[in-house]
Amino acid sequence: MESMRIECIAIGTELLTTRRLDTNSVWLAEQLADLGLGLRLKTAVGDRREDLARVIQTALDRSDLILVTGGLGPTFDDFTKEVFAEILGAPLVEDAGSRADIQAFYEARNRVPPPANFKQALIPGGAEALRNPLGTAPGVFWEDPPGHPGTRIILFPGVPREMKRMWVDHALPRLRSLAGRPVHTLRLVVAGVPESTLDQRIQDVRERHGHLDWTILASLTQVELLARGEDPAALDRARADVMPLLGEDLACIGGGNLEDAVLDLLKRRGETLAVAESMTGGLLAARLTAIPGASAVFLGGATVYSAQAKAALLGLDPGTLALEGTVSEATSRRLAEAVRAKVGATWGLAVTGNAGPGAEGDASLGAVFIALAGPAGTETRNLRLPGDRADVQLRGTAVALDLLRRDLIIDQKY
Amino acid sequence: MESMRIECIAIGTELLTTRRLDTNSVWLAEQLADLGLGLRLKTAVGDRREDLARVIQTALDRSDLILVTGGLGPTFDDFTKEVFAEILGAPLVEDAGSRADIQAFYEARNRVPPPANFKQALIPGGAEALRNPLGTAPGVFWEDPPGHPGTRIILFPGVPREMKRMWVDHALPRLRSLAGRPVHTLRLVVAGVPESTLDQRIQDVRERHGHLDWTILASLTQVELLARGEDPAALDRARADVMPLLGEDLACIGGGNLEDAVLDLLKRRGETLAVAESMTGGLLAARLTAIPGASAVFLGGATVYSAQAKAALLGLDPGTLALEGTVSEATSRRLAEAVRAKVGATWGLAVTGNAGPGAEGDASLGAVFIALAGPAGTETRNLRLPGDRADVQLRGTAVALDLLRRDLIIDQKY
Repeated sequence: MESMRIECIAIGTELLTTRRLDTNSVWLAEQLADLGLGLRLKTAVGDRREDLARVIQTALDRSDLILVTGGLGPTFDDFTKEVFAEILGAPLVEDAGSRADIQAFYEARNRVPPPANFKQALIPGGAEALRNPLGTAPGVFWEDPPGHPGTRIILFPGVPREMKRMWVDHALPRLRSLAGRPVHTLRLVVAGVPESTLDQRIQDVRERHGHLDWTILASLTQVELLARGEDPAALDRARADVMPLLGEDLACIGGGNLEDAVLDLLKRRGETLAVAESMTGGLLAARLTAIPGASAVFLGGATVYSAQAKAALLGLDPGTLALEGTVSEATSRRLAEAVRAKVGATWGLAVTGNAGPGAEGDASLGAVFIALAGPAGTETRNLRLPGDRADVQLRGTAVALDLLRRDLIIDQKY
Repeated sequence: MESMRIECIAIGTELLTTRRLDTNSVWLAEQLADLGLGLRLKTAVGDRREDLARVIQTALDRSDLILVTGGLGPTFDDFTKEVFAEILGAPLVEDAGSRADIQAFYEARNRVPPPANFKQALIPGGAEALRNPLGTAPGVFWEDPPGHPGTRIILFPGVPREMKRMWVDHALPRLRSLAGRPVHTLRLVVAGVPESTLDQRIQDVRERHGHLDWTILASLTQVELLARGEDPAALDRARADVMPLLGEDLACIGGGNLEDAVLDLLKRRGETLAVAESMTGGLLAARLTAIPGASAVFLGGATVYSAQAKAALLGLDPGTLALEGTVSEATSRRLAEAVRAKVGATWGLAVTGNAGPGAEGDASLGAVFIALAGPAGTETRNLRLPGDRADVQLRGTAVALDLLRRDLIIDQKY
């Protein structure tokens, strides 16, 4: 059987600018893959009615399943449903349940719905409204629309949170019967190793298990190695072959990222962490506290973006600081030790550096000093990180977390 | 004159099946905008010949300028040029200059080119080869291809570094003459107002200036109002009409976001800021320090994720804290005042709350307390924020920044 043609359409002028990436389609592609369904193509189109109409017409001509995100809102530039209804010759009809949901949504917030919001309760005749528990825009499920038997169309709101919830509540149950054999994924997260090094290291294993679908995904903070296949036993064999090649570079198996690995290790050891951040300005703490349950082991820290804060919050001596330089190995060491002692954590982790835009005193752009103070003493790393300000800050947090992770996986306690 | 229809096509299965994003098209969109050219839509398609052929055929039927990235490499699944050549009925011909470039590329690295690599020197007859100084895949510029007079096609390699260089070297000089009248943008950033409220408030102005292209972009932290048009005077008139409706809700005009607005106001007033974060866990500081030059006014802060850290870094009394609750108005007030006094900043801004996943002691999910301590005393806000953990944390930073912003725009100093 010819495989199903599936495409995603993301609607919104902002998706064509640099301000916003279409992450909805990426997420949907992953969900489809879990069902053993492949996405064939995806399109992003602006809020121009004429362009949207062309894209929708093309999709109806070539695809069996069309997943659309965006353009369901209450404002003048939201007209996804109108365009579908027009092309397919089905008038929009108010859905009583959706109207009641919108009314209830506002009442729960002690507000009166603006009249324009009821526009969202209009659904193409013959289609099914999908309830949105997180917002006011219902989705739409449309099977066998006029002139297109066998086609399925699902319209989701563009807000990622709402789209994801509605995928789980409504789309998944309706698509499950279409799913082929489920595809399983082996996911290994590696830290502290460049993508090309990892690629070379695993090349033989990858070729030996060539029937699997291998991917390496590098980001600024870690590298993910993915293998997909229908046979779980084949994935287990590949995993057994690849694991010895990763050694201490392996941060996670299955879910999670570098920061989850660090928090999990701390929990398992019953230890705690405090951080002192200069160059990363709170980002290291923010990455850790983005994880639910971080509070069990992450006690907090100081964002010491000025000499003033280094003295006030962590008691560093301004004279010594001036002498040693704010961006220096000595200062990173003092910060790590001070935050550890002051907060009373097992580990103190500190980052100083210059993320740019220009050189800063003696510190060249990208110069980074990381220190980890622990029960057995303090170690430091001096690095030169590439990229722009955001890159250097993010890479800095990754190097710091990985330094701690490597200390934590040493099994024996001191 | 009808504006030029421009689309981007990104080729590569990895853009569909994984978490890799098509950043090439985002970059190209920005370059086009600088030329006053708007991207109408973008497509990502995998390395399946049949799908690629459909996408290319559709693009030829609807667009005047087609920018394609990827599929120019030497391997079996690279066939962008072949498909274009086939559809347009122009045979591939070896380009002598490209062959010499490939030879030289390998010689410079003391290697012999694999024979397959010379496939990259094949160019559709009638098209122009574009040299690639950073790799072995030349690009292609094709003006008025057979059957499509007035159409321009540019093929770039998928490697972002190579694509960007070839844009500058080859595409820009060839497209500059197309740059019609530049399109100007009026951008107003509004904080503390829901999207639908803003939409209602400006509806009349929007209709009165209906010849402009209006867009509203809402995120969790702010709402952007955009109007685009060729006539700067018309944008000025729209701006004059819309500004009185925004009042103190207006955070930025032109570039920047809420955090830039706060930093700019502090700079203009010669004042400084320190933050104390519990629920937002460093994210408030990270958003501020992401902006170059933040250090001039942002002194730092304390991420007080535990009672221990609240006591150690900011001197809060553990007994009082236990009595008043870590998530409470009283504690947010103490934190703001403590960080302000300790760091010696003009303003101390604190956030406590419960971002979930569940309720935490007495604090229901989404309960947030924000306090701003300043020269004239301390004010607080109690809120209930919707969404998941990441949403509540991010919204919390926005409410905090907006509270400070509104105090800073009051003109007189105390």
